[in-house]
Amino acid sequence: MENRLAWGKQVLAAQPFSVLLGAELLSFSKGGVELKVPIKAELMQQHGFVHGGVISYAADNALTYAGGSALGPGVVTSEFKINYVRPAMGEFIVARATVMHAGKNQAVCRCEVYVSSRGAERLCAIAQGTITRVGQPSKPRTQPRQST
Amino acid sequence: MENRLAWGKQVLAAQPFSVLLGAELLSFSKGGVELKVPIKAELMQQHGFVHGGVISYAADNALTYAGGSALGPGVVTSEFKINYVRPAMGEFIVARATVMHAGKNQAVCRCEVYVSSRGAERLCAIAQGTITRVGQPSKPRTQPRQST
Amino acid sequence: MENRLAWGKQVLAAQPFSVLLGAELLSFSKGGVELKVPIKAELMQQHGFVHGGVISYAADNALTYAGGSALGPGVVTSEFKINYVRPAMGEFIVARATVMHAGKNQAVCRCEVYVSSRGAERLCAIAQGTITRVGQPSKPRTQPRQST
Amino acid sequence: MENRLAWGKQVLAAQPFSVLLGAELLSFSKGGVELKVPIKAELMQQHGFVHGGVISYAADNALTYAGGSALGPGVVTSEFKINYVRPAMGEFIVARATVMHAGKNQAVCRCEVYVSSRGAERLCAIAQGTITRVGQPSKPRTQPRQST
Repeated sequence: MENRLAWGKQVLAAQPFSVLLGAELLSFSKGGVELKVPIKAELMQQHGFVHGGVISYAADNALTYAGGSALGPGVVTSEFKINYVRPAMGEFIVARATVMHAGKNQAVCRCEVYVSSRGAERLCAIAQGTITRVGQPSKPRTQPRQST
Repeated sequence: MENRLAWGKQVLAAQPFSVLLGAELLSFSKGGVELKVPIKAELMQQHGFVHGGVISYAADNALTYAGGSALGPGVVTSEFKINYVRPAMGEFIVARATVMHAGKNQAVCRCEVYVSSRGAERLCAIAQGTITRVGQPSKPRTQPRQST
Repeated sequence: MENRLAWGKQVLAAQPFSVLLGAELLSFSKGGVELKVPIKAELMQQHGFVHGGVISYAADNALTYAGGSALGPGVVTSEFKINYVRPAMGEFIVARATVMHAGKNQAVCRCEVYVSSRGAERLCAIAQGTITRVGQPSKPRTQPRQST
Repeated sequence: MENRLAWGKQVLAAQPFSVLLGAELLSFSKGGVELKVPIKAELMQQHGFVHGGVISYAADNALTYAGGSALGPGVVTSEFKINYVRPAMGEFIVARATVMHAGKNQAVCRCEVYVSSRGAERLCAIAQGTITRVGQPSKPRTQPRQST
């Protein structure tokens, strides 16, 4: 799908919380996605690191996009698990998610979240979760739904 | 600890991301915590429900507080898993976390996230995770760290 | 359902792996289940504790039963997460699972695994997972399926 | 470490539960491991598929080995999460685990479990978990511990 990235950006722009966090969709292809969140002061916890909630947001949303690339519009993350492996400090985080297996109604996806600082990327979290189709997939007017 | 709640609120106020989301600590006792996030337009996804990232933030942070109530200051959520069970729409969400087991350096905690609408609460997510002590627990000046 | 326990025992007896491990169904009601595994020498790891694989088997199977009590026959555990909190040594382990939320096709359940030693129970693991309906739920001859 | 595989096999042979299941260590290098379980009648559930408990055993044990390859002897799986993606039927399952991040006392690892049937492998589960060092790592006589 040629316009997948444009469509994905449109969905992201329609999510007020993603807008609040400043998330950007870097790439979006069948089976994979890259979601970036620039690090700003208001995304921190009390020690100058990116708050875990920002990292889990990025992982969750990237997993949903990855699942949606396999299942089509109208999907949600029904569950996921995340391991934080390193405090994140730098210019931005980027979550990269891929599809490990997709059935008709569910996809199982993985995600790595990296923090970029001075041009170098370091892994800060990994995640794994289930993306589920919702609503009426046959109705073309059904809007995509991420992360209810 | 009498001043636990006051101390917990101080920690929350020192987390810019928690301030951005408008999170409030309702209660904080040994073994349990209640964290509330009022639902505002900017916390939504594209269909008028609370974004999953807000719910996972609440679960993650509540788990950290619960773990900290058992382990003392200077803890992080090292991993957690969340199942979303219902889209959240209403006035606020509240995450309630409890300690299931605490060792010297780690605690395993559970969390339920409810959405409150017109005075009625409904379960919208459940989570389970590990909270780990970091830093120098013997140094009294060590600040608590949530969700690095 | 009066015969739920009898039916559940029949299902367990039809699982060669459950028979190999010596699992027993203690109770089985709408929303909850108790599954017992007597501790034997061949279920150990190399230090005289019950192998984690036995504990995760018990959690997984108990989660499936709990889900099945809400969704009806023909269910599988599609995913779960487990935290081991204490090495298990004693006479038997018992996994107790309950339904936290059930929709039409999926249930989210929790489980605690205890080890019993000299009459005292101690928590050794907690788990959380998703149970999914499979197959043709309308066909009465559909056999229950646990943990495919 | 040249003798890593030999050492790993020795550990496996010392786990009665692994012997009961017929598990074999195929490879064991720094950062990765392959654990095989031949499919036998007694490892099934009631529909002729490998029981989920066998698959989660393989994932759990492979994760522990992977973590041990980074942290050294004396490790346990403290938590893991698994998604089953396909029923397993064939000649054997093989769990392949790798280290995603290793600190001083903990490693975060991933695992894929494949089922092999007539020479073809298919993914049947993926897992992610934390492996933790236990005991006195400085004492050379400390035995490795998997999956307490």
